[in-house]
Amino acid sequence: MHSLLILSRFARDYRALIDAAQLPELTITSIDDPAEATATAASFDLAFGEPALLRQLMPALSGLRWLQSTWAGVEPLLDPALRRDYILTNARGVFGAQMSEYVFAYLLAHERKLFERQASQAERRWDQTPPSRLRGKTLGLLGVGTIGAALARTARHFGMRVKGYTRASEDCADVDEYSHGPLTAGWGSDLDFLVSVMPATATTRHIVNDALLRTLPPRALFVNPGRGGVVDEAALAAALQEGRLAGAVLDVFETEPLPADHVFWRLPNVRITSHTAALSAPPDIAPIFVDNYRRLLRGEPLQYRVDFERGY
Amino acid sequence: MHSLLILSRFARDYRALIDAAQLPELTITSIDDPAEATATAASFDLAFGEPALLRQLMPALSGLRWLQSTWAGVEPLLDPALRRDYILTNARGVFGAQMSEYVFAYLLAHERKLFERQASQAERRWDQTPPSRLRGKTLGLLGVGTIGAALARTARHFGMRVKGYTRASEDCADVDEYSHGPLTAGWGSDLDFLVSVMPATATTRHIVNDALLRTLPPRALFVNPGRGGVVDEAALAAALQEGRLAGAVLDVFETEPLPADHVFWRLPNVRITSHTAALSAPPDIAPIFVDNYRRLLRGEPLQYRVDFERGY
Repeated sequence: MHSLLILSRFARDYRALIDAAQLPELTITSIDDPAEATATAASFDLAFGEPALLRQLMPALSGLRWLQSTWAGVEPLLDPALRRDYILTNARGVFGAQMSEYVFAYLLAHERKLFERQASQAERRWDQTPPSRLRGKTLGLLGVGTIGAALARTARHFGMRVKGYTRASEDCADVDEYSHGPLTAGWGSDLDFLVSVMPATATTRHIVNDALLRTLPPRALFVNPGRGGVVDEAALAAALQEGRLAGAVLDVFETEPLPADHVFWRLPNVRITSHTAALSAPPDIAPIFVDNYRRLLRGEPLQYRVDFERGY
Repeated sequence: MHSLLILSRFARDYRALIDAAQLPELTITSIDDPAEATATAASFDLAFGEPALLRQLMPALSGLRWLQSTWAGVEPLLDPALRRDYILTNARGVFGAQMSEYVFAYLLAHERKLFERQASQAERRWDQTPPSRLRGKTLGLLGVGTIGAALARTARHFGMRVKGYTRASEDCADVDEYSHGPLTAGWGSDLDFLVSVMPATATTRHIVNDALLRTLPPRALFVNPGRGGVVDEAALAAALQEGRLAGAVLDVFETEPLPADHVFWRLPNVRITSHTAALSAPPDIAPIFVDNYRRLLRGEPLQYRVDFERGY
């Protein structure tokens, strides 16, 4: 018999979806406040929920064998002070489509001048400034996991060229050119768009730094729906203020919510999307738990296991 | 020997591109003002250019055998008062990619709430209103020629369902469901988006009328990058003002430029794009002339011939 703790802002939704799956040998407790489980925490061998909430219970979850995160990013659970003697799995494979809609909404808005035309319309002006096109342009991807692969597929659909920067993998057929290791000085010089979908790890911290930003051409648009820590925000703000970049579309930041006095709010060529690029929707995420639970019962390896050292 | 008149706003670009093709048995005159050719018009057996400009010379082009339009729409040449004893070919196959970027820029902007988030940003507000998604939504296409097929392919890429309304064709694999003949009362009732890419003909005039608009659900967005005459503008304005539609994205109108006092300028749920959805770019269009000229020399049928009766 397994004992599962669901700890999530959407605990009721997850409970209903997991109940509906009628999983065998499972008792379930579902709560949305960590304080409700402090007394009974030691009794759970399985946990499912948001890393930021579960982190608070980690010292008390002494019987934990497996934790399924509802998020892709599991940074709160990677603190070296926390135990690592359990299986941690994250959510993958479900964010690609959302991320693709997010990124290409802004790439297309940029080419088709959506905001400029809206300003013309406010003046009742018949504005025939020619639009530009994605076709033939070059997208640089920092990170080519399942999300990066989905972005590459959409880029290919629109006739773009894709350069992928990854730690090691090279298995996405929609990436035209791969790079690994230290970014060479010229890597960014032919990009029209730079999109970061890298996880936040010690290795990726501030990978979007002054040196990389200075290699981008002034026509380039930077899009970050990944993790805020990947970007040196002061260097990015300087590039935008000095006209060394066409603009930036930013979903994530080093501090969230973005402080009201942050310079990004005031720059005309920055679009802020307040960490909404890809949401963990219970109907997408619950099946990941259900599938992994069935694997657990069958004694098979779980999907999407996180390597604590690597950080994803 | 053939004698070609290039009459276009982009006459110099077209001249350079056609010169570069080194076509045999061809003398070329290139002008951007019809008045420059009135005296010599009878000497040309071939013409290439914008229908609106060429129309003015039609009575004088007495030796014309073939006219290649730089536009898809050839309405100016379909006036029954004009001669029809020549081969008219239009530009096709080159607008699909541009139209797809245009339409999906606005579909994605709608789902991802680009304009709403921009308003939040102006207030420095961390706005986490959840976005919605194209995936799973239904697109209704009025017209499934080469442009409609390109839109259907992009819709399929984003996981949408596509309903196509056409005169007769059914050969696009990305359309899930075809309709022909009079539109049935329920046809529009399950649409999230209605996009018209129909040519302007006697049959398509005001096909987007009050009856069709009343079958659409209030969540639906109407997009018209096709032809203005297809829409009953008074009926559309009423639907938008009464909240029977989520909004409209309009590139073309019955009168262009859209008059400054037109109600569409003032409606908050209308986006006006001033006939820029798909532009005839010389590098895209010149190869159509070149290919057709080579067919002419070989005595083969020309591509993209317009049926004067059908109107496209």
